Amino acid sequence: MRERLEDVRAQVQTALEEAMAALPEGELTDAMRYACIGGKRIRAFLVMESARLFGLRDKESLPVAAAVEALHAYSLVHDDLPAMDDDDLRRGLPTVHVQWSEATAILAGDALQSLAFGLLTDPVIGAPDARLALVRLFADAVGARGMVWGQVLDIAAETAVEPLDLVAIKRLQQAKTGALIQFSATAGAIMAGEDAGPLADYARHLGLAFQIQDDILDVTGNEQDTGKRIGKDVAANKATFVSLMGLEGAQDKARKLARAAEAALEPYGEAAGNLRDLARFVIERDA
Amino acid sequence: MRERLEDVRAQVQTALEEAMAALPEGELTDAMRYACIGGKRIRAFLVMESARLFGLRDKESLPVAAAVEALHAYSLVHDDLPAMDDDDLRRGLPTVHVQWSEATAILAGDALQSLAFGLLTDPVIGAPDARLALVRLFADAVGARGMVWGQVLDIAAETAVEPLDLVAIKRLQQAKTGALIQFSATAGAIMAGEDAGPLADYARHLGLAFQIQDDILDVTGNEQDTGKRIGKDVAANKATFVSLMGLEGAQDKARKLARAAEAALEPYGEAAGNLRDLARFVIERDA
Repeated sequence: MRERLEDVRAQVQTALEEAMAALPEGELTDAMRYACIGGKRIRAFLVMESARLFGLRDKESLPVAAAVEALHAYSLVHDDLPAMDDDDLRRGLPTVHVQWSEATAILAGDALQSLAFGLLTDPVIGAPDARLALVRLFADAVGARGMVWGQVLDIAAETAVEPLDLVAIKRLQQAKTGALIQFSATAGAIMAGEDAGPLADYARHLGLAFQIQDDILDVTGNEQDTGKRIGKDVAANKATFVSLMGLEGAQDKARKLARAAEAALEPYGEAAGNLRDLARFVIERDA
Repeated sequence: MRERLEDVRAQVQTALEEAMAALPEGELTDAMRYACIGGKRIRAFLVMESARLFGLRDKESLPVAAAVEALHAYSLVHDDLPAMDDDDLRRGLPTVHVQWSEATAILAGDALQSLAFGLLTDPVIGAPDARLALVRLFADAVGARGMVWGQVLDIAAETAVEPLDLVAIKRLQQAKTGALIQFSATAGAIMAGEDAGPLADYARHLGLAFQIQDDILDVTGNEQDTGKRIGKDVAANKATFVSLMGLEGAQDKARKLARAAEAALEPYGEAAGNLRDLARFVIERDA
C-alpha cells in the first residue's frame, strides 16, 4: 500500500505540474505550484484505488485525483490566511501568504479551485454523464453545504462561549474534511456508474478516524513530522475529539472506526486490499 | 432592451435565490445572498440573449446566467477585500467583509465559485457534451489564465514603478473582465454547438468598451449612481484608459468599440437587436 501511495504521489505531482504548465508564468502560478507541493495525497489515493475496484485505469482516474488534490491545496491556503486560522507553517514550509502575500494567497486559492473543476472535464475520464456527475457532486462536496460550511463551523467554534460537544464536532468534521474524502472515495463508483454505497460508508468511517488521529497528533505529534504547528488546539482551548474523549478514548474510537471502514469494503473482496491498508495507515500515521 | 434586462434581472434573482435555498441557514448563506443582490446583470443578459439567437429558451439558459452572476459576485467580494482593493462600498451597500468579516467574505466568495460550477451541470441546460464544454470554458475564463490572472495584473500595476501602457492595460482588461464577458456572450453558441466566432468578436469589443466606460465613470460619475467609490483611480495615480487617452479620446474609443461590437452581430440580423442595444447601453450608462 505504501508503494502504491508513492506511485499515486508521483503520478499526481506530474498531472498537477502538467495542468499548471499551461498557465502564464509569474507569481500566481508559482504560488499555485508551491501550494500543491507535498501532502500525503490520501484523497488522490482514494480516487485512484476506488477507480481500480471498477476496472478503471490510472490514466482515467488521474485527472480526478489531481482535481481533489488541487482543491485540497486551495482549502489549506485559504484556511491558513490571517483572517482564518492564521498559520505560518504548512507541509514543513512557510504558508503561501507568508511566502508571498495575502492577496497572492487568496488568488492562488481561487485559481486552484477553478483549476480543479477544469480537470474534472478531461475527456480521458470517460463518458460525459460520468464527468458531469463528478462536477456536480464535487461542487456540493466543496461548497456551502460541504467543505466551506465546515470551515465556517470551525471558525464559529473558536469564538463560541460553549465548547462544541461530540455531535457538533462530528458534524463539523463531516462537512470540513468528510465531504471531500467521501467524494474521493466514491469517485470510482461514480465514474463507473455503479453503486457508491459501500464506499460512502467506508469514507464516513475513514474520514472520522482521520480527523480523530489529527486531533491526537496535535497533542502527541511534533512539528518536524507533521510539518505544521502543533499544540494549537490545546492552546486555543478548542474542543477536539481528544479533549472530549480523552487521549485513550480517542485512540480507541479511531481504532474502531478504522475496523468499521475495513468492514465496509467487504463487497469488494481482495481488490480492496490497499483501501483496507489505508484505514490502518490513517490511525497509525505520525504525520 | 431595458425591459428585457429587467426581465433577465428578475429571472436570475429568482434562480440564485432558489440555488441558495438549499444551503444551510446562517452567516455564510446570508453573505452569499447579500453578495448576489443588485448588479447590472449584463453577463446574465449576454448569456440569455446569445442563447435566444440559437432558439434556446430562457429556461435552458437561466442556470448558466445564474452561474456567471454567482461567479461575478464572488470576484467582487474577493476583489474588495482589504488585502486586495480594500473597498468598503459596492452596489451601494457596505462590502461583505465590512458587513460581516474578512473570513466570511473569503468563504462566501469561495462557496459562490463552487455554486457557479454546480449550476452549470443542471440537466435543463441541455446535452451533457454542451454542459461539459461550458464547465471547461468557464474554468478557463475564471481561473489562472482568465479572471484571476487579470486581478493579479491589476494588483501588480498598482505597485509598479512605471504606469501601464495601452497594450498592458488592454491585456489586463481582457483577462480581468473580458474573459468572463466572452464566456457569457458565447454561451448560447456553446450550448447550441454552433460557431461562437461572431459572438466572441462582439464580446471582445463590448468588454473593452465596458471597461473604458468604467474608467470614464471613475472620473465623471458619482457614488450615488455607481454604488461604489469613485475617483479611486486618479487618487491612486493608476493608469486607466482615461489617463492614457484623455477623457475625449476614451469616449471616442468607447463609441468606436460599441459600433464594432454591433457590426460583429451582422450574421444574426434582426434577432440580435437586444445585443446591439446593449453595446450602446454599455457606453451610455452612468452607473
